Amino acid sequence: MDVCVLTLFPELFDPFWNHGIIRRAVQGQKIKPVTINIRDHAKGRHRITDDRPYGGGCGMVMKPEPLAAALAEAKAAMPSATTLLLSPQGRRFDQALALSLASEDGLILVCGRYEGVDERFVDQHVDGEISIGDFVLTGGEVGAMVVIDAVARLIPGVLGNDESAGSDTFCDGLVEHAHFTRPPTFEDEPVPDVLMSGNHREIERWRRETALMRTVMKRPDLLAQRDFSPQERDILEKWRRDIDRLIG
Amino acid sequence: MDVCVLTLFPELFDPFWNHGIIRRAVQGQKIKPVTINIRDHAKGRHRITDDRPYGGGCGMVMKPEPLAAALAEAKAAMPSATTLLLSPQGRRFDQALALSLASEDGLILVCGRYEGVDERFVDQHVDGEISIGDFVLTGGEVGAMVVIDAVARLIPGVLGNDESAGSDTFCDGLVEHAHFTRPPTFEDEPVPDVLMSGNHREIERWRRETALMRTVMKRPDLLAQRDFSPQERDILEKWRRDIDRLIG
Repeated sequence: MDVCVLTLFPELFDPFWNHGIIRRAVQGQKIKPVTINIRDHAKGRHRITDDRPYGGGCGMVMKPEPLAAALAEAKAAMPSATTLLLSPQGRRFDQALALSLASEDGLILVCGRYEGVDERFVDQHVDGEISIGDFVLTGGEVGAMVVIDAVARLIPGVLGNDESAGSDTFCDGLVEHAHFTRPPTFEDEPVPDVLMSGNHREIERWRRETALMRTVMKRPDLLAQRDFSPQERDILEKWRRDIDRLIG
Repeated sequence: MDVCVLTLFPELFDPFWNHGIIRRAVQGQKIKPVTINIRDHAKGRHRITDDRPYGGGCGMVMKPEPLAAALAEAKAAMPSATTLLLSPQGRRFDQALALSLASEDGLILVCGRYEGVDERFVDQHVDGEISIGDFVLTGGEVGAMVVIDAVARLIPGVLGNDESAGSDTFCDGLVEHAHFTRPPTFEDEPVPDVLMSGNHREIERWRRETALMRTVMKRPDLLAQRDFSPQERDILEKWRRDIDRLIG
């Protein structure tokens, strides 16, 4: 997958393309990264990329021409790519959208800065707007990294067999079970006995039970629409009996 | 505000502390950034930071001791800081949480990697878990950048007068109005006349109207609980009359 970022801060992406699983995806040619500096496409000696808003008001607005020129360069190299603008007004990015973007030929991610981007560039050149959450950032760059990170690991072959995305939080609608590794006792707290038992059926049930419990406690919203499995229903009924016993 | 990141990829943060508004916040001593490499706190010649999970299964788990040692270094320098783990199971990060974190003395952001972090470290050392959204990342680093970026710009004095956070999307419960800057015509599309009119009352109304329209179209969920102002109610009633006329 071609992944192109249009940004005023290309230097943010140098270490990003070179770290961890992203680096492995690049080296394994699962993603082909390009960073385009929007400023390189601005005209004039000062290469100005922003200007004051029509109608007055605070802040600066990104000029449409440098963005369009930078995008034209990206599109020339990857004509079938989808162009997405990081914007707090965009469609909310989530795991389902990550999965769908992971099957695109190419992604061009446009990082806005300042108060925003001239609306005509958005209207005429952007296929979609994408938001990583209900908060305001100083620019789209860290949002673009979020999208690339979440999407890259879902491209087949990027994660090793030993790190399958299958047990991810959200993947089966529950948050993940708790994890423990050596040492067996850390600051007087031992690893739960069941994980040392070697009984795989009990370990599986314990993990499902703690995942369900953690979801009830941490993210009950994830369970509102859930169609519980017989095993999960069993676990919930057992908790209800436990609570009934506690409070009479 | 002291901002400390515990990470296996400190190099990701070098350009981050040095860009845009974050750089200005650092130079203006509004934030004091520290990046701690968790690996520097791992024992042994290989400085191992991860190990296999108890109970078996895929992937690796971050060992508790290097995390605890790295955190101890951070805490020594900023004893009153709040320690947050980036985790898909955490409390959802949003603008309200950003605003509340902006008044903390210090933040220590712990970036997990691999399948997760030994639960005992979380239980004993982490004040809270924070999630930037319902998607899975290869590590907490880009999430930490999101949190720092959103929080830093809300610290008083970081944004200039000319870039106040007051008209942000989410700030007043609507997405922002459209922005336009020069040239007056871009790819045959002119700037809306009203913005060139110099009539500030009409410009204000147009902006409010487009903000409301964009929210209805892009993020209707933001309006479900809204207590509409008389002006907004006016605008919505006008649209209803327009639509009534269209469909009879």
